[in-house]
Amino acid sequence: MGNQKIRLTVDAVVFGYEDGIISVLLIKRKYEPYKGKWAIPGGFILENESLKKAVERELQEETGIKISYLEQLYTFGKPDRDPRGRIVSIAYFGLVRPNVFSISASTDAEEVQWFNIDDLPKLSFDHKEILNVATQRLRGKITYEPIGFELLDKKFPFSDLEKLYTTLLGRKIDRRNFRKKIISLNVLDELEEKISKGSGRPANLFKFNQERYFHLKEKGIIFEI
Amino acid sequence: MGNQKIRLTVDAVVFGYEDGIISVLLIKRKYEPYKGKWAIPGGFILENESLKKAVERELQEETGIKISYLEQLYTFGKPDRDPRGRIVSIAYFGLVRPNVFSISASTDAEEVQWFNIDDLPKLSFDHKEILNVATQRLRGKITYEPIGFELLDKKFPFSDLEKLYTTLLGRKIDRRNFRKKIISLNVLDELEEKISKGSGRPANLFKFNQERYFHLKEKGIIFEI
Repeated sequence: MGNQKIRLTVDAVVFGYEDGIISVLLIKRKYEPYKGKWAIPGGFILENESLKKAVERELQEETGIKISYLEQLYTFGKPDRDPRGRIVSIAYFGLVRPNVFSISASTDAEEVQWFNIDDLPKLSFDHKEILNVATQRLRGKITYEPIGFELLDKKFPFSDLEKLYTTLLGRKIDRRNFRKKIISLNVLDELEEKISKGSGRPANLFKFNQERYFHLKEKGIIFEI
Repeated sequence: MGNQKIRLTVDAVVFGYEDGIISVLLIKRKYEPYKGKWAIPGGFILENESLKKAVERELQEETGIKISYLEQLYTFGKPDRDPRGRIVSIAYFGLVRPNVFSISASTDAEEVQWFNIDDLPKLSFDHKEILNVATQRLRGKITYEPIGFELLDKKFPFSDLEKLYTTLLGRKIDRRNFRKKIISLNVLDELEEKISKGSGRPANLFKFNQERYFHLKEKGIIFEI
């Protein structure tokens, strides 16, 4: 056991949400294995850094973006998942608003790009499986945590929040019921301002009540839609 | 990175439930570090085995019990968590009925014992933290999965299920509401038989509807108590 030859990597599944579309950040690999193929950003852990530091560092090195609130997703360790030998990977995930970040490839990434999750290239290693696990977790998450604070405009019409949930769930929701449930969470402040969009009547604007939002984020909610 | 010197272990948090008491399976370490101290069972991963195989093997080697339905909990990787060097541990957890297993210490365990979780000895490494994360996860789990099939008698009075939930939650519940919710899940079959306990009137017996139970286990439930 003393000379166990297993190496450890971290991978970062970064989802983006913008206006009804979910995307994921991928890099094109500069070196073998899978040279020239798309992959989830990630890499080897350094000996003296924590797992979280490692994943933040790798993400920044490869894509230029810095995110400090990635969550641990799952550890993938099938013996044959990497052609370089036994490599176990600890995957993290997060959900951001893509247009607030500017991405730029470096170190072992040749390119970096947001891909619509409905139109993905073929992925390297077992990254398709990692992405599937992350997508499922993201979907589950919105039933026990409020979501949207970092993803919507500071002031937004209710329909933006509805679109966010519909998109993440990947299905239609009962709109009246949804509104009732969100309102009952007490997480939104309704503003005096209205917004005009298209030909409908002006819609009220809302903003998140920050204190209440982060309280519920910590405490957890049960939200059946 | 090619000569990264990180080693990997797995740890198994095995909770037991019996008649209103939650326990956890611990071993007394035979060797340094923490020789003679209590710890969660676990050990080094072999190079050609999956993570799941590794944790099942270690658990069986150290405690004599074989469990095939452990779930991955979280990966612990603080650089200084183990005095032997950088060792990252992938923790798994499960919940069983202790009296169906016979435990026996072997390999690097000097003793093995079930401990009431309200009366634990001092634990080695960061095992106290691992146990805390596992306890929280266990509590969360019962709000999105049915529970009890492997933990209660085949036929049981409703009060046994209520006691299980109360114990896992660690607090009182609204009994009428709880009953209504369980019934609405359609996961129980009510039997013709009754059971007499103490001086109250005989209680109806229930059993789980297996098909429905495992369907909900897979599909997930939303269960606010």
